Amino acid sequence: MKLAAKPRGGIENLGPAPVVILVRPQMGENVGAAARAMLNFGLIDLRLVAPAFGWPNAKAVAASSGAHEILNRMTIHARLTDAVDDLHHLFATTARPRGLNKDIVDARTAAARARLQMARGRRVGLIFGPERTGLENDELTLADALVTVPLNPAFPSLNLAQAVLLLGYEWHMSTAAEPRPETPAETPAAESPAGNPHAPPATKGDLDRLLDHLLTELDDTGFFRSEDRRQSLSHTIRTMFERRRMTRPEVQLVRGIVKDLVHGRRRRKGEEGQGG
Amino acid sequence: MKLAAKPRGGIENLGPAPVVILVRPQMGENVGAAARAMLNFGLIDLRLVAPAFGWPNAKAVAASSGAHEILNRMTIHARLTDAVDDLHHLFATTARPRGLNKDIVDARTAAARARLQMARGRRVGLIFGPERTGLENDELTLADALVTVPLNPAFPSLNLAQAVLLLGYEWHMSTAAEPRPETPAETPAAESPAGNPHAPPATKGDLDRLLDHLLTELDDTGFFRSEDRRQSLSHTIRTMFERRRMTRPEVQLVRGIVKDLVHGRRRRKGEEGQGG
Repeated sequence: MKLAAKPRGGIENLGPAPVVILVRPQMGENVGAAARAMLNFGLIDLRLVAPAFGWPNAKAVAASSGAHEILNRMTIHARLTDAVDDLHHLFATTARPRGLNKDIVDARTAAARARLQMARGRRVGLIFGPERTGLENDELTLADALVTVPLNPAFPSLNLAQAVLLLGYEWHMSTAAEPRPETPAETPAAESPAGNPHAPPATKGDLDRLLDHLLTELDDTGFFRSEDRRQSLSHTIRTMFERRRMTRPEVQLVRGIVKDLVHGRRRRKGEEGQGG
Repeated sequence: MKLAAKPRGGIENLGPAPVVILVRPQMGENVGAAARAMLNFGLIDLRLVAPAFGWPNAKAVAASSGAHEILNRMTIHARLTDAVDDLHHLFATTARPRGLNKDIVDARTAAARARLQMARGRRVGLIFGPERTGLENDELTLADALVTVPLNPAFPSLNLAQAVLLLGYEWHMSTAAEPRPETPAETPAAESPAGNPHAPPATKGDLDRLLDHLLTELDDTGFFRSEDRRQSLSHTIRTMFERRRMTRPEVQLVRGIVKDLVHGRRRRKGEEGQGG
């Protein structure tokens, strides 16, 4: 989506920063204002998921106040899972955290954690929902942690670009200092590859494919019994995996196990078929 | 300057906060957006110095997104000295601090100092200049300290309301009493038991039984192929579970899944058997 705009200097000099993902933005102006807020604080990678408007968008360009390179680099995706496929660690912003089993942190803590993750070579994403409705529960479930900005409860009126601005500000203000011994990378090494903390972390895409695989097999066996039960249990299973930063080999191992249990079943079926 | 707007609740409950002074604002919408940003963070006293527009101002009201009480309480002054007459300690925001013999602090430090001053019963003011030109030197000299927001030097493009937002945010963040849940244990319980952070952690026994169950089934399908492979893979699987603090319901869920995948297999076998 090239726009007729001569990129300004500076981007080359900016260090790695989190990716900003705007889910179903309703107004082009807000995307432009978000791009402007991002560039103020050195955030340069913007991704849109199913925007409610076409692209290129004149209002977005106007509202970006010259942050053209952000819009030039921006990518548009059909689904959130596509937009975060290559990312390792996700923060989802939410006004009112629902009853999800997720860490809830403020923007400052999120920035510190993002720095820590990126210092380890992980790719980090900051997810923002639609202007009015915010993110759906199943979208929040994708995140490793939920981010809230403490506001005056009598007037919680932060717009999309302002939310992006505050997270960008905290990112810019944060330093790669405080280490937190709470992630797999800091647990003692196991001999086996999958347990090896130095193994590459699973991307969101790896986890998605694992969960799709598992859910498909469980559907096949009628595990869920009812759609309601499927909803809540699949949600629980996803949370269980998301909450634990798995390595890529671990995901492959679990997939191998599921496949094997099912394959074993199919093989027996085959034998039975021959034997019968 | 009363506007026909029913004040919303909340202001009475808000503690004392710095006064925001906008010097020669050029556009009404920026004043409205600033009022909105203020109320988000509990700043309620707004003063204008020689605005470039008349009052009341429809664009300001529209941009305030309902922060009417800020505009209702707002006062307008001819000169900055009049606007700060009753204040004790002033912070003046500036993009590029000139060669003035003044303390230069960031927004976070300014917020901390403002709290300190107010704890001593001083009245504090935050002064913001005109959109494009910023404050004049003689206006900056009125301040006890100058405030800058660190920005990407290649794109320092913060508008008036955003500057107010960031200082308001830092003021709000500096509140000692701000409760910030940061652990799952402090998040509301999830609908599904396995996702419930208050669920009891799995005991070593729970994990052992889960692993025995899984290994038995994998032995049954010949998953491991060789004793060496069984050794290392079972160790990996154990490590994977051990490392992650699972809740008891989560262990039960995983056992249910394994059982189901296998049971589905046996059920099929049964069907096949009858069929054969």
